[in-house]
Amino acid sequence: MTQWVYSFGAGTAEGSAGMADLLGGKGANLAEMSGIGLPVPPGFTVTTEVCTWYYDNGRTYPDDLAGQVAAGIAGIEGTVGRRFGDSADPLLVSVRSGARASMPGMMDTVLNLGLNDETVRGLAESGGDARFAWDSYRRFIQMYGAVVLDVDHDEFERELEHVKERRGVYLDTELSAEDLEALADRYKEIVQEQTGAAFPQDPNAQLWGAIGAVFGSWMNARAVTYRRLHDIPASWGTAVNVQAMVFGNMGEDCATGVAFTRDPSTGDGRFFGEFLVNAQGEDVVAGIRTPQNLTVAGREMHGPDLPSMEEALPDAFAELVRIRGILERHYRDMQDIEFTVQRGRLWMLQTRSGKRSVQAALKIAVDMVDDGILDPAGAIDALDPAQLDQLLHPTLDPAADVAIFGRGLAASPGAATGAVVFSADEAVARSQAGEAVVLVRVETSPEDIHGMHAAAGILTTRGGATSHAAVVARGMGRPCVCGAGDIRVDYEAAEMACAGRVVKAGEQITIDGASGRVMLGEAPLIQPELSGDFARIMEWADDLRRMAIRTNAETPAEVRTAREFGAEGIGLCRTEHMFFDEDRIVAMREMILADDASGRRAALEKLLPMQRRDFAELFGIMAGLPVTIRLLDPPLHEFLPHSEEEHAGVAEAAGVSAREVRRRIQRLSEANPMLGHRGCRLAVTFPEICEMQARAIFEAAAEVQEKTGRPVAPEVMIPLAFSMEEVALLKAVIDRVAAEVAERSGVATEYLVGTMIELPRAALQAGEIAREAAFFSFGTNDLTQTTFGLSRDDAGNFLPAYVEQGIVPKDPFVSLDVEGVGELVRIACDRGRAERPDLKLGICGEHGGDPASIAFCEEIGLDYVSCSPYRVPIARLAAAQARLRGNP
Amino acid sequence: MTQWVYSFGAGTAEGSAGMADLLGGKGANLAEMSGIGLPVPPGFTVTTEVCTWYYDNGRTYPDDLAGQVAAGIAGIEGTVGRRFGDSADPLLVSVRSGARASMPGMMDTVLNLGLNDETVRGLAESGGDARFAWDSYRRFIQMYGAVVLDVDHDEFERELEHVKERRGVYLDTELSAEDLEALADRYKEIVQEQTGAAFPQDPNAQLWGAIGAVFGSWMNARAVTYRRLHDIPASWGTAVNVQAMVFGNMGEDCATGVAFTRDPSTGDGRFFGEFLVNAQGEDVVAGIRTPQNLTVAGREMHGPDLPSMEEALPDAFAELVRIRGILERHYRDMQDIEFTVQRGRLWMLQTRSGKRSVQAALKIAVDMVDDGILDPAGAIDALDPAQLDQLLHPTLDPAADVAIFGRGLAASPGAATGAVVFSADEAVARSQAGEAVVLVRVETSPEDIHGMHAAAGILTTRGGATSHAAVVARGMGRPCVCGAGDIRVDYEAAEMACAGRVVKAGEQITIDGASGRVMLGEAPLIQPELSGDFARIMEWADDLRRMAIRTNAETPAEVRTAREFGAEGIGLCRTEHMFFDEDRIVAMREMILADDASGRRAALEKLLPMQRRDFAELFGIMAGLPVTIRLLDPPLHEFLPHSEEEHAGVAEAAGVSAREVRRRIQRLSEANPMLGHRGCRLAVTFPEICEMQARAIFEAAAEVQEKTGRPVAPEVMIPLAFSMEEVALLKAVIDRVAAEVAERSGVATEYLVGTMIELPRAALQAGEIAREAAFFSFGTNDLTQTTFGLSRDDAGNFLPAYVEQGIVPKDPFVSLDVEGVGELVRIACDRGRAERPDLKLGICGEHGGDPASIAFCEEIGLDYVSCSPYRVPIARLAAAQARLRGNP
Repeated sequence: MTQWVYSFGAGTAEGSAGMADLLGGKGANLAEMSGIGLPVPPGFTVTTEVCTWYYDNGRTYPDDLAGQVAAGIAGIEGTVGRRFGDSADPLLVSVRSGARASMPGMMDTVLNLGLNDETVRGLAESGGDARFAWDSYRRFIQMYGAVVLDVDHDEFERELEHVKERRGVYLDTELSAEDLEALADRYKEIVQEQTGAAFPQDPNAQLWGAIGAVFGSWMNARAVTYRRLHDIPASWGTAVNVQAMVFGNMGEDCATGVAFTRDPSTGDGRFFGEFLVNAQGEDVVAGIRTPQNLTVAGREMHGPDLPSMEEALPDAFAELVRIRGILERHYRDMQDIEFTVQRGRLWMLQTRSGKRSVQAALKIAVDMVDDGILDPAGAIDALDPAQLDQLLHPTLDPAADVAIFGRGLAASPGAATGAVVFSADEAVARSQAGEAVVLVRVETSPEDIHGMHAAAGILTTRGGATSHAAVVARGMGRPCVCGAGDIRVDYEAAEMACAGRVVKAGEQITIDGASGRVMLGEAPLIQPELSGDFARIMEWADDLRRMAIRTNAETPAEVRTAREFGAEGIGLCRTEHMFFDEDRIVAMREMILADDASGRRAALEKLLPMQRRDFAELFGIMAGLPVTIRLLDPPLHEFLPHSEEEHAGVAEAAGVSAREVRRRIQRLSEANPMLGHRGCRLAVTFPEICEMQARAIFEAAAEVQEKTGRPVAPEVMIPLAFSMEEVALLKAVIDRVAAEVAERSGVATEYLVGTMIELPRAALQAGEIAREAAFFSFGTNDLTQTTFGLSRDDAGNFLPAYVEQGIVPKDPFVSLDVEGVGELVRIACDRGRAERPDLKLGICGEHGGDPASIAFCEEIGLDYVSCSPYRVPIARLAAAQARLRGNP
Repeated sequence: MTQWVYSFGAGTAEGSAGMADLLGGKGANLAEMSGIGLPVPPGFTVTTEVCTWYYDNGRTYPDDLAGQVAAGIAGIEGTVGRRFGDSADPLLVSVRSGARASMPGMMDTVLNLGLNDETVRGLAESGGDARFAWDSYRRFIQMYGAVVLDVDHDEFERELEHVKERRGVYLDTELSAEDLEALADRYKEIVQEQTGAAFPQDPNAQLWGAIGAVFGSWMNARAVTYRRLHDIPASWGTAVNVQAMVFGNMGEDCATGVAFTRDPSTGDGRFFGEFLVNAQGEDVVAGIRTPQNLTVAGREMHGPDLPSMEEALPDAFAELVRIRGILERHYRDMQDIEFTVQRGRLWMLQTRSGKRSVQAALKIAVDMVDDGILDPAGAIDALDPAQLDQLLHPTLDPAADVAIFGRGLAASPGAATGAVVFSADEAVARSQAGEAVVLVRVETSPEDIHGMHAAAGILTTRGGATSHAAVVARGMGRPCVCGAGDIRVDYEAAEMACAGRVVKAGEQITIDGASGRVMLGEAPLIQPELSGDFARIMEWADDLRRMAIRTNAETPAEVRTAREFGAEGIGLCRTEHMFFDEDRIVAMREMILADDASGRRAALEKLLPMQRRDFAELFGIMAGLPVTIRLLDPPLHEFLPHSEEEHAGVAEAAGVSAREVRRRIQRLSEANPMLGHRGCRLAVTFPEICEMQARAIFEAAAEVQEKTGRPVAPEVMIPLAFSMEEVALLKAVIDRVAAEVAERSGVATEYLVGTMIELPRAALQAGEIAREAAFFSFGTNDLTQTTFGLSRDDAGNFLPAYVEQGIVPKDPFVSLDVEGVGELVRIACDRGRAERPDLKLGICGEHGGDPASIAFCEEIGLDYVSCSPYRVPIARLAAAQARLRGNP
């Protein structure tokens, strides 16, 4: 027999905090608190498995559930000494939903359940307070009516206002018992009118109605949307918590409140919260009365003149402070709690880990280590790596009032404000003139790099989270919103429009790369500040992690940033980014337009000294750390211009006719460039390109070694191979050039030649390929594209629908698809290591900066992850967590 | 110790015919003939492994080779009773290359090796013929000089002509012994002049020189090119055959000849060949003397007046006839033989399977079964399925004199001749006027289908063997040459140019889809004729094969053709091809441009009756055989027009502005359409399309079943899925529509819902997917594209270089890549069957018509292969062969 119901209360519990999957967060923590002897009103939890069963079986319940619920009610009755539906001294209960993760949008709470026309009188007599009893009953009808019976909430509110008007009073509390009794009657009429049925009088029918409403709310539109936004699978289900009522509204010795065990925005150790005397929980939320501070200190700091709980209810407060200590030491984390004081006695209604700002999270973690509550591993484990992002970029002031213009994908974190420009050149010109600009493009290409660099932020209307704009922006640490499909850009008119509003070039906008919002005007930003807490956390993470952290970077500025953030090498230096400078692209185009290998060689000769200088600079900055250099990767047409006038310029520079340039461009154009003539296919067909790059690498290495006396560690990486043969062919070229340079310069360089694994066939052929390659770096962007047959540039038209319908749990370009892409990565690791046990394994796709993907990398034993400079701290923390969690 | 040398001769042999991989074709067959007691001059074969070793080790030999060669020579000496280099009675040898497959372009033969200034005198004395000895010597110097020492062959020829002039004679045979001795001296001087070294006198040095020349020629440019054209891997290597000389030029009782054991062009059973009295093999080839017929019958039929071998050398002829019978029964195949008669004694120098026309191949196979030489399985095994292609299409008259205009890829077999047109519309117009046309396009798109259908042949200048043009042309049985990159098409000028020559619209050209040639003018064609032999062979194949053969077809004409060719079902009906008719594309575009689902539904309503009619017709033709219908697959932008004026037309039809049409087109355009919004992604985002198609299928099925009283068997196929979830989602739609139609029409249809496996992730997730899919059809075109990360439309720029350099053994779009793509197919089969043991498995990529790929399909146990109609007979034969060879 399945146990569908878990009881708690009176110092014992069938469940515990570890059972959140089964009992939901709230239920598990109620059980936990009860189990460690804290005062929790007795109750029981109907498990999440019932929810799953409910949806798997056409919204019905398991046969044996009813009996278990009845036993649960009986248990509560035994503990509190009252009976459910007893007309003399009735047991009342609350019914609350409780998913694994807190989930607004679902049915929240029904209080006072068990009241009916008969028990309300018993409550009045037994409690000696008719007004309280009728107030409870009318509140119950209102709540139950709204959330279970789907009666419009306003109907009740209108009636209440009506009664108050008639009585000429302002506050609910000014209504008499008789008023409230009449109101309850009126409420029942409303229910009858709206639902066509009488308000249920049978407490059991009430209970099952509430349980059904909780399960039903799991699939309502708001809950579905929330789950989608927060990556919560529908299969998790929700639990239902049924608990004896305690009342904070029975008089002046009653109260209800919420608190954080520490300050959630700064992390300070002071007790932080609010309460209301003679109130029920909903009153705190409703905001009609001004809540009072918990502590004297709090009141003095910013409270109104009302007494603090410390003053008003000193005994209950002392008990709360004691419990605060117990909870923090027990959970080893800052807690967010709810409590009620009924006639001077404290009851705990909820505890959970408290949400906090990233600054607070760091301070709390460090303080708890210093206080001996946590060890460094525990501190690391408690942090959310993704949250660190906020620390590293300017962010939007949350207090700011903003005017939304449009929305896109949150592609690169941080907020930026500036004048709108629609071209890279204009971005450069205006920024050189000292103006902050936001570059707006339909999409970006490598030709826009200088403009992206010059801009404070980037906005595109097309492309996903791994589009060119997004990847480059993250690398540069530029805030970026991309794929804002509702915004229409009109380059000719130099304006963009969304929902009827038009923004012209030069006007100010603000983009928030953390939320995807595009705002009109200059919104206020908050600058980041790295605290000593941050440094200590990072140190602990470094001690705990196994994997090395490298960075995807190629410009000296980026590489320096990455080093400051703790990168231990370059995992991906994209050499093509080095060819877009104005003086270089001319030689590059000359190379592309050359008739034959000798023409290409002549143009490459011009590029060689520049490439050598690039590499020398990187080797210098990285000071002996490994530098993985990827050979030229993009299709050559990416280097050619798009406009007619540019064709003429290129023609002149290359000494051919404009017609000939167009013809070549036409010839180079591709139906599917992603699957085209790129990667090592370039080097196979034009080995002179590979030769030039190898020469630049080894000459730079020789030069830097000679100058510094320290070794450098280049790792030459062959992109887009699908076979051992390609790697063997190019490795031979690289080895030959290395030997030649060593011979000529007299300086030998230790180096590795390896390959990206970014095609399914490469993963399958990894055993063969490992015979030639000393390392694999998983290019999971392209591997995701080819494994799914999904162009990241084009996925915007359907991938959101896929995520929404649950076909894919998350955007696979953001978080690695462990089932599909992950299996290929695993296969490649296994086969590669079987052939070459010391094969070096890393990842350099965008996933290298995603904590969930990093956990997968740890699981399969990669040697390093590589990510954009601004994600290096996140990766350090995530790698430490992955190590901790992978080795329990 | 490795055995590098295999001896044969005197009725024994170390090798056999089965060892062609090691000994080459020639060496293996010499050993075989020797082993069964036929008269073969003794000799030995240096194995292909030596060739591999030679290239793996910087063109050096294994240490122990010299000893084994010396032992081989000693073996010959023992058998013939002469010694190599003996000045009194020297042993002379021939040295010939011998790869696994016959390979022009490599070093062929050096005869008379072992002669030098001393042994030539011994030969003169021992043979009693000084003229013969000096002639042999000068021939040896000439051959050795040319092929081993790289002396220009003309130098020797000039000198020979010079001597003949001086002597005033016309024929070589008129020169005296003294003339020839002087000529030999002059030849040695030429060698000295040209090479800077004396002609080698040491027979051993001569021998090693010749062996080295054979191995060296394996990598010469012509051999490399030949291998590339004929898919021969460089790793195979060549063997070297060293054999005692026999002489057909020692007098009138000597002769040399070549023969086929049957007529290679008709297959008739008569003995067929030519010979020359008193000649060496090279004389037959040189064509200076007219060869004589072997038989009296042959001479009477077409020979000159010279006596036949049957008359001139009756004893040797009788022996040859006896050996012909032995060889045919031994090899169970028609043989191509070479022989020499030395002083009345017959020596066999070569036997191999004879090349034959496809008509001859069929007749020989059938005759050999009737004669009891072969059983039907043996007959099937002996045939080349690819050759059948010639039977099924008009072909170029091989006797025709043609003027080549350009070349492209042989994309769809057969030859076609007609007037050049540059647009599909013009093709239709002219062909309706009764003119044969060849449609010439840079590349084709679905919009050109009507023109391709109207054309006699198709020529494109871009795209590979699986480009749109190639695939569609094969499906229609239209000859096609594609990717003719040197031809430049100028649509505006309505002309095309290649190497300075211009062809204007309306001029006649001929294309040969079997060779890729494009010719000026109308070349004469030969019409195909299907013989009774063909029918018998097909019957045997059907008895022997396990896999069913289906076809990829959707037009009634194609489907009928396929049925006539023996297709047992439709494996791929591409529904999108049904939407390009003029009346349909309008509705299709309306659907695409609709604002919302209801607009789309309205347009789809118009398409529904047309689709239903299509399916009803197919179900009717297929009469109960399975019909696999793929849901709409291509990205929607493929249905939209490209030109400005067309935009206006579409705008008018759809009732929106042209600007709006352009905006939508812009919005639908994709960076990588192959990986874009297509396949089941369309149905997931626009389920109404899937609904309409399902409705058309089931309504048509109901209609046809009602009318014919016979069941129909639709198999609905979901394209481009990468997950179980997509299949589950769409299967639910299809099942619902099927139930609705059954309900409404009262006719239930038995059907299957399955999926294509054409993405790596789908292959990996096959176990999950098989829970929902009743069948898998491997779409190996797209699976190859994604597994390799290779766009078939763009591969033309580098894939040829990849094949040339041996990085891929064959174009993976033509022959399935067993290692990579094949592993994914295997994984999918294994995981799918594990989940659903009765899972139906088939292939519908272009590989379904490729014999090598069909063998792989048999190996992994697919249930069927599906191919274009004109390849159905090839697939039937290949499937039978695969079954035979897979179950030895």
